[in-house]
Amino acid sequence: MKIKLLVLLFLSTFSVSAQVASQNIQDSLLIRQIFDEALSNGKSYDQLYFLCKSIGHRLTGSPQADEAIDWAKEEIEEYETTRIELQDVDATRWIRGAAEEVRISGTINRRLDACALGGSIGTKGELKAEIIEIKGIKNLENYTREDIEGKIVFFNEPMDPKLINTFSAYGACASQRYYGAVEAANYGAVAVFVRSLTTLTDEHPHTGSMSYKEGVEKIPAVAISTESAEFLHTDLQTSKVFGTLDLDCKTSEERALTHNLIGEIKGSENPENIIVFGAHIDSWDKGEGAHDDGAGVVQCMEVLRLLNEVGYKPKNTLRMVLYMNEENGNRGGHAYATAAKEANENHIFALETDRGGFSPRGFSIDGTSEQVEKIGVWSDLLKPYGLHYFEKGYGGVDIGPLKYKDNKINPKLILIGLYPDPQRYFDYHHSDDDIFENVNQRELELGGASLASLVYLLDMYAKDFE
Amino acid sequence: MKIKLLVLLFLSTFSVSAQVASQNIQDSLLIRQIFDEALSNGKSYDQLYFLCKSIGHRLTGSPQADEAIDWAKEEIEEYETTRIELQDVDATRWIRGAAEEVRISGTINRRLDACALGGSIGTKGELKAEIIEIKGIKNLENYTREDIEGKIVFFNEPMDPKLINTFSAYGACASQRYYGAVEAANYGAVAVFVRSLTTLTDEHPHTGSMSYKEGVEKIPAVAISTESAEFLHTDLQTSKVFGTLDLDCKTSEERALTHNLIGEIKGSENPENIIVFGAHIDSWDKGEGAHDDGAGVVQCMEVLRLLNEVGYKPKNTLRMVLYMNEENGNRGGHAYATAAKEANENHIFALETDRGGFSPRGFSIDGTSEQVEKIGVWSDLLKPYGLHYFEKGYGGVDIGPLKYKDNKINPKLILIGLYPDPQRYFDYHHSDDDIFENVNQRELELGGASLASLVYLLDMYAKDFE
Repeated sequence: MKIKLLVLLFLSTFSVSAQVASQNIQDSLLIRQIFDEALSNGKSYDQLYFLCKSIGHRLTGSPQADEAIDWAKEEIEEYETTRIELQDVDATRWIRGAAEEVRISGTINRRLDACALGGSIGTKGELKAEIIEIKGIKNLENYTREDIEGKIVFFNEPMDPKLINTFSAYGACASQRYYGAVEAANYGAVAVFVRSLTTLTDEHPHTGSMSYKEGVEKIPAVAISTESAEFLHTDLQTSKVFGTLDLDCKTSEERALTHNLIGEIKGSENPENIIVFGAHIDSWDKGEGAHDDGAGVVQCMEVLRLLNEVGYKPKNTLRMVLYMNEENGNRGGHAYATAAKEANENHIFALETDRGGFSPRGFSIDGTSEQVEKIGVWSDLLKPYGLHYFEKGYGGVDIGPLKYKDNKINPKLILIGLYPDPQRYFDYHHSDDDIFENVNQRELELGGASLASLVYLLDMYAKDFE
Repeated sequence: MKIKLLVLLFLSTFSVSAQVASQNIQDSLLIRQIFDEALSNGKSYDQLYFLCKSIGHRLTGSPQADEAIDWAKEEIEEYETTRIELQDVDATRWIRGAAEEVRISGTINRRLDACALGGSIGTKGELKAEIIEIKGIKNLENYTREDIEGKIVFFNEPMDPKLINTFSAYGACASQRYYGAVEAANYGAVAVFVRSLTTLTDEHPHTGSMSYKEGVEKIPAVAISTESAEFLHTDLQTSKVFGTLDLDCKTSEERALTHNLIGEIKGSENPENIIVFGAHIDSWDKGEGAHDDGAGVVQCMEVLRLLNEVGYKPKNTLRMVLYMNEENGNRGGHAYATAAKEANENHIFALETDRGGFSPRGFSIDGTSEQVEKIGVWSDLLKPYGLHYFEKGYGGVDIGPLKYKDNKINPKLILIGLYPDPQRYFDYHHSDDDIFENVNQRELELGGASLASLVYLLDMYAKDFE
């Protein structure tokens, strides 16, 4: 009897491990098919060309942003989906306006490479004041109101080039751009200049969002290029320097009634469980929003196409969302999360690609250590494609509200961000250089295939995460 | 007694593992210093600018090739080394010449984007013949001499886009470029057109070396751009197409008496053991030889500087070699290996960087599985810098002769190639697009720091490989 049991146990173990091995081979073959299709017949690159060159940059509320949504809808109508829908997003529209000039007069008079930060008020004519340089926000505490009142504060904290992950360097000094105007206004400043957030020394101002606070005077805020920042810093060592701003930018009084785009393939076994993956279709009004986040948009559309092409029928519902307004308000991400909550939907994974169309290295996972480990188990399947990074980390702006809504955390939901090589991202980010020509076709297509492969694995093994 | 022994054993084990842990921390700190220095004060990028823009491309025997050696020598004279030396290399000089025109007449008459392959003979006036397309060398066997005699063979095998490692795709069809002229001449062909070896569809012809064989008629060989290849392929479907070549290229009758550059730091404990690391200073006469292999050259010079800056005193002798003539003869690599053998030198590791200045991913190791595993042990130390690839593979052209001299293999010698992200390399390779502007500063500097870190580890733990 005992021997029989042992034999049975052995056979069943053998059969389970044979099943596991066979499943592993099937996974491996399907992932190979996904990558083959992407690298041989990928559509992302041509789609990105259209998005960048025929539509162009797409700030929320602009005609191009709406055109982009319509175009993406038409594109995915070619694919097998079970639902395509526009989701309302109520946002504001910020407009750069005609005049945008920043000059300084110190040892010489010159124009700076500058542009208004997104959300900034204009100057209503020329605004002239003396400039005071302060490295970053935290250094404000070393100054008194007397030092700063009536002046332009020049925040000049560079990104730390020593950090291998440039996103960490960005995170460490982005507060000067986002909160700089409020903090400086608290000391009586009349405007802020912010050093562009890039590791390059270049002539492009890199824009980005900034904020105001109820009860604190609103003052204009501009980004200046790192070259201009270096010049100004040097000039300030030997001379008083005055800045003159002329900005027409403003937030429009009319609401921007715009949309997220949803494209869905209904699950065959557990349609109530949703795996959402997305990117943001809006962009800054500089360059063409090619890496940020045109690349992510076409990669997500490609996930739908790739899963179609390899004939995969998902168990759970796979839902692509192209979010509006990530850049200046994240109203799209919030609208999506709110609707999901109201409909009592069960999201099990939320993925995002918004770190540029560079060679993919893996995934940044916002989950428990146990959840991260479970995803890391697939590294053997994904390593042949250069994917080796499976680390605890940040998911993404658009998917954030799904997990962190109204200060309540949904600990079961795993947020995952595609993690491409981060070295070049901030060369282009939010600047005139974020154009199609700076995206490499193979790198872009590999990113889409990586995302599709992970979506496949998450769908296949969703039960392991329950 | 037994208990005492156990306690002693425990204590000694504890002390050994404490030592190991402390050494691990020291290694980790030193590697951090190397990367900090490279990313904060790296010199490679400025050096590459000079090499590309002030000197330019550097085909063996050209004045620029010699100028580059002199410049590199002056640069490393700034660093603490114990020996700097020029090593004689006797090579040939191939010259592109003035005329280089390829036209076709089929459904229309047009010029092709074309350039002679390195080593090709010229045409002595115009050469005109009908074109026959053959996918790759191995397909020649499907043809008779009658099919081919008197014609131009157009080898049109594309690189396989599905291979993640583009070097594998290159290797799989490079034979049409290198052996195409000999194989086609065997069938009586009068010239060959070879599809450029790139994954892009672009207008640049990508040159590269080709060969002739004693006793086989020498015929001219040109590369045509992938765009031209696609056009010609289409034209051949509906029409006879004739090609006309006018090429002035030739191999000069005078020898090119040129040099490798050696820069060495003598070992403090085992000076007789040599760790050599290098790159090739020659380049094709297209573009500026920026990725191939200007990047490698400045990375190797940077290894010397970085190890100086962090104050590291090597145990074994560290030797940098900048090789001449990798592109069309590998006489530099052979001259170095011959001299090393004659002097009975003991090389323990040979490293090379010649896969472009892209974001480093790890190392390709030509050694036994056991040797590869030993290097892989350091992955934890190197992972924070994005280095995850420690695989058995190809070392490099220049260091090859050290291990495979005169068909004798030195199995103890480990060849190691820096392995950067391979997606963009063949976009630029051997074409007018291989220019400084296409190299990213951070990616370049990270590569130099990666190489310096591995040289450090190999030097520290050389004994483990004995």
